[in-house]
Amino acid sequence: MNESQKRPPVAVVIGAGDATGGAIAQRFAREGYITVVTRRHREALDSLLESIEAEGGQAHGFGCDARDEDAMVELFKHVEQQIGNIEVMVFNIGANVRYSITETTERVYRKVWEMAALAGFLAGREAAKAMLPRNKGTIIFTGATASLRGGSGFSAFSGAKFALRALGQSMARELGPKGIHVAHPIIDGAIDTDFIRDNFPDMYARKEQDGILNPEHIAEQYWQIHCQPRDAWTHELDLRPWMETF
Amino acid sequence: MNESQKRPPVAVVIGAGDATGGAIAQRFAREGYITVVTRRHREALDSLLESIEAEGGQAHGFGCDARDEDAMVELFKHVEQQIGNIEVMVFNIGANVRYSITETTERVYRKVWEMAALAGFLAGREAAKAMLPRNKGTIIFTGATASLRGGSGFSAFSGAKFALRALGQSMARELGPKGIHVAHPIIDGAIDTDFIRDNFPDMYARKEQDGILNPEHIAEQYWQIHCQPRDAWTHELDLRPWMETF
Amino acid sequence: MNESQKRPPVAVVIGAGDATGGAIAQRFAREGYITVVTRRHREALDSLLESIEAEGGQAHGFGCDARDEDAMVELFKHVEQQIGNIEVMVFNIGANVRYSITETTERVYRKVWEMAALAGFLAGREAAKAMLPRNKGTIIFTGATASLRGGSGFSAFSGAKFALRALGQSMARELGPKGIHVAHPIIDGAIDTDFIRDNFPDMYARKEQDGILNPEHIAEQYWQIHCQPRDAWTHELDLRPWMETF
Amino acid sequence: MNESQKRPPVAVVIGAGDATGGAIAQRFAREGYITVVTRRHREALDSLLESIEAEGGQAHGFGCDARDEDAMVELFKHVEQQIGNIEVMVFNIGANVRYSITETTERVYRKVWEMAALAGFLAGREAAKAMLPRNKGTIIFTGATASLRGGSGFSAFSGAKFALRALGQSMARELGPKGIHVAHPIIDGAIDTDFIRDNFPDMYARKEQDGILNPEHIAEQYWQIHCQPRDAWTHELDLRPWMETF
Repeated sequence: MNESQKRPPVAVVIGAGDATGGAIAQRFAREGYITVVTRRHREALDSLLESIEAEGGQAHGFGCDARDEDAMVELFKHVEQQIGNIEVMVFNIGANVRYSITETTERVYRKVWEMAALAGFLAGREAAKAMLPRNKGTIIFTGATASLRGGSGFSAFSGAKFALRALGQSMARELGPKGIHVAHPIIDGAIDTDFIRDNFPDMYARKEQDGILNPEHIAEQYWQIHCQPRDAWTHELDLRPWMETF
Repeated sequence: MNESQKRPPVAVVIGAGDATGGAIAQRFAREGYITVVTRRHREALDSLLESIEAEGGQAHGFGCDARDEDAMVELFKHVEQQIGNIEVMVFNIGANVRYSITETTERVYRKVWEMAALAGFLAGREAAKAMLPRNKGTIIFTGATASLRGGSGFSAFSGAKFALRALGQSMARELGPKGIHVAHPIIDGAIDTDFIRDNFPDMYARKEQDGILNPEHIAEQYWQIHCQPRDAWTHELDLRPWMETF
Repeated sequence: MNESQKRPPVAVVIGAGDATGGAIAQRFAREGYITVVTRRHREALDSLLESIEAEGGQAHGFGCDARDEDAMVELFKHVEQQIGNIEVMVFNIGANVRYSITETTERVYRKVWEMAALAGFLAGREAAKAMLPRNKGTIIFTGATASLRGGSGFSAFSGAKFALRALGQSMARELGPKGIHVAHPIIDGAIDTDFIRDNFPDMYARKEQDGILNPEHIAEQYWQIHCQPRDAWTHELDLRPWMETF
Repeated sequence: MNESQKRPPVAVVIGAGDATGGAIAQRFAREGYITVVTRRHREALDSLLESIEAEGGQAHGFGCDARDEDAMVELFKHVEQQIGNIEVMVFNIGANVRYSITETTERVYRKVWEMAALAGFLAGREAAKAMLPRNKGTIIFTGATASLRGGSGFSAFSGAKFALRALGQSMARELGPKGIHVAHPIIDGAIDTDFIRDNFPDMYARKEQDGILNPEHIAEQYWQIHCQPRDAWTHELDLRPWMETF
């Protein structure tokens, strides 16, 4: 019997800063996964870690700049060596900004790509390295409306989200036949977050009619993707409130 | 209390002739749905009805040409009046044929469309009529690889599947805001059926490695689509064996 | 020397009833093509034929129901035998209607498909039969916004246009390697026609700012598609007024 | 009369290092455009400049790292102030590499994006700044097969090309209604270049049958895109040899 097969399974969520990443971590923790969550500043993860542990789950938080190759390599190595086998990696960092093309600075264009695409590449690659020897694992990249459509004012954001979609497709085609499930759910609607509540009150008002996405329902979907048997894997699906136009 | 709300929920599967339609019916029957299944010849449904009832489910079979408007109107009316509220309608008729363009007869081109698109329109429309007064229900159209790509030799089949996809999109946009969930799963791979076993033995041999889709896993996915809360509905998703190239 | 190679080239336009089909015929006539134009009623072609001949072009008009297989087979045979080699076939019949799903009759759903998809199949197949022995020719199917998106209320129209797009893709993949160029331009905007002028005056008012498509400019594009050298063929392109949102 | 309107029109080609960029510059030069061509090393442009001038055209060459914001801002400013009005900008830098995901270094992933996407953003933005005051101009971004599909091993290249496509869409939607035509032709096949001849001799052998793209034919298409009247603009089209599978 292989030693590594006895180790507990780990779910890593890169970008657990918002409600969605947190709900996903919580969902996998409830199923017995040791959850590893990251965001830029470690201390901002405290309440998430507490709430996972309050439910009896196991969670580790790391402050980590996901755009930093060395930091990411180190993180995945540490998790595999010290915590357990990474069976799930969810990449959940977005960077939704809107500027007219002439107002988009090189700094913004680059930073948005680094956060939403380069970091996804680093996380995906390191997860693949961990999973390949076991021919097993699930990698999920969170997509958005801007993954499919370059809207006016979204050159930076849709550029990064298109790139992340390309990454997901490329990895799915390479890693699927090696037993690793790569998925790209597209969230097409506002999510119930503080950001939406504070900045888009009209949109937030739809919450009473289920007009914005509940992070726990997104998390449930991610869990179901992970549970799919390998003869029937989903690579891409959309998630959208019933009243959302598209 | 409204009389109609006390009636048992019904799941209608149009085209329960193959393994997939049967598995879907079985899946909903297990959840307590009265299952109504149709195919061209009533007697061919006997074994499916028996196996649903053997598990304690309730099932009704109807011989019905799904391309016949009067027959379809009559069927849905009968189900609503005599059996229960239609909460789910799955349209599952395909007609996969391959001919070079010059060898494709008008009769084949028309028949494939009638089976895979016109019948879907009739089933979808009648289901919508039943569901709209209750602002509730799930309509699922089964898609295929040919729903997204017009391959050489598939002018008839992909024409019909493209049309069915358009129907699903159009109905989703119209009926979503009225509370009806319309979905279009795309099955991108061979399914474990007698047809594949008998005609494509090489493909069927992949079964041992989970290289073809298990109808029960497709059915599970359809059940999960139906269960999605209305703030997070999926319209389109793909289902594909891990080793399938795409 | 092959007799048939000396015969004059023919451009067939199926559905020359509106401004677009007429402008396309005129464009090819100006280049020396004998133009064969059809619509339902022969006499409605008189003014088009006159205007082509007034410019020194050669044109033949046929009253022909493009949904009728026998009529179409007969037409293409007649043209090849009596008029010349078909080098170009443009299929230009649309059938833009909008109804809610529950108000869409079987008759409308079927008729729209017969006009916009079945007739395209018949025209495409007969053109292919004529062109294949020469390994040469151009087949163009006119697409629309509804070719890419199933909008609310457009189950019939988008169903037919999706099917036509599948036909174009399938034929391109089969016939391209046999020397036949199959293209599918997508007209994404209102065209300067009597229909738009009479029914959508607000839209028509954009004409002064070039906000609707000039049929002659569409025709020019079709001519250019036909002229593409075979190492650089276009299968799909969009055409859209500068001020159109998309 | 506005002084600036009397100045000669300029066509800028960013990335004129390969056969395609050179042919595009030559094509516009033949129409009387002053051509500004760039590549990394100025001296490598000598033969292109000579051949344009030998035909009586006017050309300026600049050595310029297109990933360097300051250099690009300076270049466009210099052209507008010293040479003429930029009416056309073609961005033509690619970076086609293939590595398995685990072999893709951060350096490669970043560099490919900088060359094929970031540089496109800088060129597109600076061109837009020059064109917006005149509400006139054409911006063309060269796409590839990898713009539409994330193939196995192409995480870096398809990531960059997807991002460039998003940029083109976003700019088209923002700038179209301001009179600027943004297009994204997709080259789906090998081009007749030294690179293909030296590295893919089997592919190059197809040249005799017109099985690879002639750069002059690509250039002709770019010229035609620029000539489209504003009521019938193309945003996206594919270009593919007749015998190419797709």
